[in-house]
Amino acid sequence: MITMSQEFDQSKLYTNHYPLEHPVKAFGWAVRDPSAHFSPFNFSRRATGGRDVQVKVLYCGICHSDLHMAKNEWGLTQFPIVPGHEITGMIIEFGSKVEKFKVGDKVGVGGMVGSISRYTDGTVTYGGYSDKIVADEHFAIRWPENLPLDAGAPLLCAGITSYSPLKYYGLDKPGLNIGVVGLGGLGHVAVKFAKAFGSKVTVISTSINKKQEATERLGADSFLVSHDQEAMEAAAGTLDGIIDTVSVAHPLLPLVNLLKPHSHLIMVGAAEKPLEVPMLPLIFGRKSISGSGIGGIKETPEMVDFAAKNNVSADIEIISMDYINTAMKRLKKSDVKYRFVIDVANSLKVE
Amino acid sequence: MITMSQEFDQSKLYTNHYPLEHPVKAFGWAVRDPSAHFSPFNFSRRATGGRDVQVKVLYCGICHSDLHMAKNEWGLTQFPIVPGHEITGMIIEFGSKVEKFKVGDKVGVGGMVGSISRYTDGTVTYGGYSDKIVADEHFAIRWPENLPLDAGAPLLCAGITSYSPLKYYGLDKPGLNIGVVGLGGLGHVAVKFAKAFGSKVTVISTSINKKQEATERLGADSFLVSHDQEAMEAAAGTLDGIIDTVSVAHPLLPLVNLLKPHSHLIMVGAAEKPLEVPMLPLIFGRKSISGSGIGGIKETPEMVDFAAKNNVSADIEIISMDYINTAMKRLKKSDVKYRFVIDVANSLKVE
Repeated sequence: MITMSQEFDQSKLYTNHYPLEHPVKAFGWAVRDPSAHFSPFNFSRRATGGRDVQVKVLYCGICHSDLHMAKNEWGLTQFPIVPGHEITGMIIEFGSKVEKFKVGDKVGVGGMVGSISRYTDGTVTYGGYSDKIVADEHFAIRWPENLPLDAGAPLLCAGITSYSPLKYYGLDKPGLNIGVVGLGGLGHVAVKFAKAFGSKVTVISTSINKKQEATERLGADSFLVSHDQEAMEAAAGTLDGIIDTVSVAHPLLPLVNLLKPHSHLIMVGAAEKPLEVPMLPLIFGRKSISGSGIGGIKETPEMVDFAAKNNVSADIEIISMDYINTAMKRLKKSDVKYRFVIDVANSLKVE
Repeated sequence: MITMSQEFDQSKLYTNHYPLEHPVKAFGWAVRDPSAHFSPFNFSRRATGGRDVQVKVLYCGICHSDLHMAKNEWGLTQFPIVPGHEITGMIIEFGSKVEKFKVGDKVGVGGMVGSISRYTDGTVTYGGYSDKIVADEHFAIRWPENLPLDAGAPLLCAGITSYSPLKYYGLDKPGLNIGVVGLGGLGHVAVKFAKAFGSKVTVISTSINKKQEATERLGADSFLVSHDQEAMEAAAGTLDGIIDTVSVAHPLLPLVNLLKPHSHLIMVGAAEKPLEVPMLPLIFGRKSISGSGIGGIKETPEMVDFAAKNNVSADIEIISMDYINTAMKRLKKSDVKYRFVIDVANSLKVE
């Protein structure tokens, strides 16, 4: 029995026993090399262990980090890679020690299971661009009745990535002024969560074209074009916190200047190259530039319940599995409003 | 009556009424232009207002920011400038509404009074490289009996600058692992405060030559040479917080790597140019790069009392006023252990 528990032996993570064959046949779409071209891929998954659930993948969101990983832009990728960590699905099998779930239950499986690392036995983990996934029940989130399985899937990464720092830095109190930089997959969900917490939300973007979208459709209270110096200066010192979702290099000083003293510019988008940070404005205002990744597994059920209660979900474009290469090209150009979600169950055809 | 209170009108800070003449003759050493050459300077100070104390300057520490300001390296300087914000002295006159002090009381006057800004009437403030200073009693700190007036003076800036973030970020609990980067005026006081809080202190320096000094004289528990990759990697993830006192450009990634998750690299040294900050290590560890300047006026009495009780003071080299130009040259080369303090009362001669 192979289980993935939190007590795994780190020393076994990187061994030469790759790839081990597993008993459960699986099928998905993989990238074999940094060309990042996706194609069908037969592989195997471990048997459903005592504490495991086997989940039929229904939907899987496409996160910008899937693209980073497919291209090995962070130098962390083990090829072949099957990305996908915004998974919603249905339990089709469970181990003898599973207490929380039964067959037919709807669940979410997020990034904690890891599409970028290895299991305790040295085998590579594969993500949700595939027909099924096996996970310790600890990593399966019971899905709220009224949260859509398709538009809710991106919450498992984009959602928790914005919800978690808002909670962690005390930015979940009504009446605060919250900035959101970048209006992509992460940013538009960050706006929705901040609004749900009762904040006054300012979207900061390079493009005036997003103003109407931000204020009318997403409900942001105000909009700043980041290179409009006059407007940026007028808004200096007004924000209680900023969630910066931009994953390419960009100037941080204008954002730091928007912050009130003692507050945080929270980086959730991961630029490949180091960014330049001016120290004096941090020092004079006791400001911080802080990183924040996906939240912990404990916070995720709380987040999906909050999202269900407050009607927070992603704005999505549903695609079929074989559209993935086109989708990645469009994602690269930010040509999506705002998240692609693969309709895995209805479009993944075993070849 | 001209008073400097906290209720001053910000809009009057920058006016053309410069310089107004004041009734109290004062004398000090000033820099007239960015050549940063100091020479004797006659000027005037405001009359002692109702809430003011007039303080005879006894000692004044030389802070690295005095040098930055004298050279106008931050672009903030109003020439002529009389620096000095680490002032200890004795009250020689006080206003009718002063309640806390009497003539003869020993006090400290720190950076809150400001040697870099202007008073409400538009006149430039002058610092402690001078015979006397007039300040609202609110900005005068009662000096503890057993805290030396000379070696204690630098606590008013270097002391509060390290004490304040240690408190603010919860790094004042016994048993924590605290890093201090750079062993200069700020760094050596940071080591002493961290030790006084009961921390295990690691000094991080570019030079192995400082090891003996750090561990034997200042009581640091361990020492890391920042370019010793092996030692730095061995210490990765071990520190609960780092106070970085280095005021020139330096790599931050190796320091971020020393931090435990969820902890802060606290910048108190102000490099002129932006520093490069890698985002992924911040994101994966939810780490922060945080600025921290001098603490508030409320924290300063607490700090000097703590210092007096725990025998914390600066290691100093006492100089005469006319040594200032040489001292600045030596400071530029970090050729001082660890802080110059001007024996103002005994060496400032009216010419």
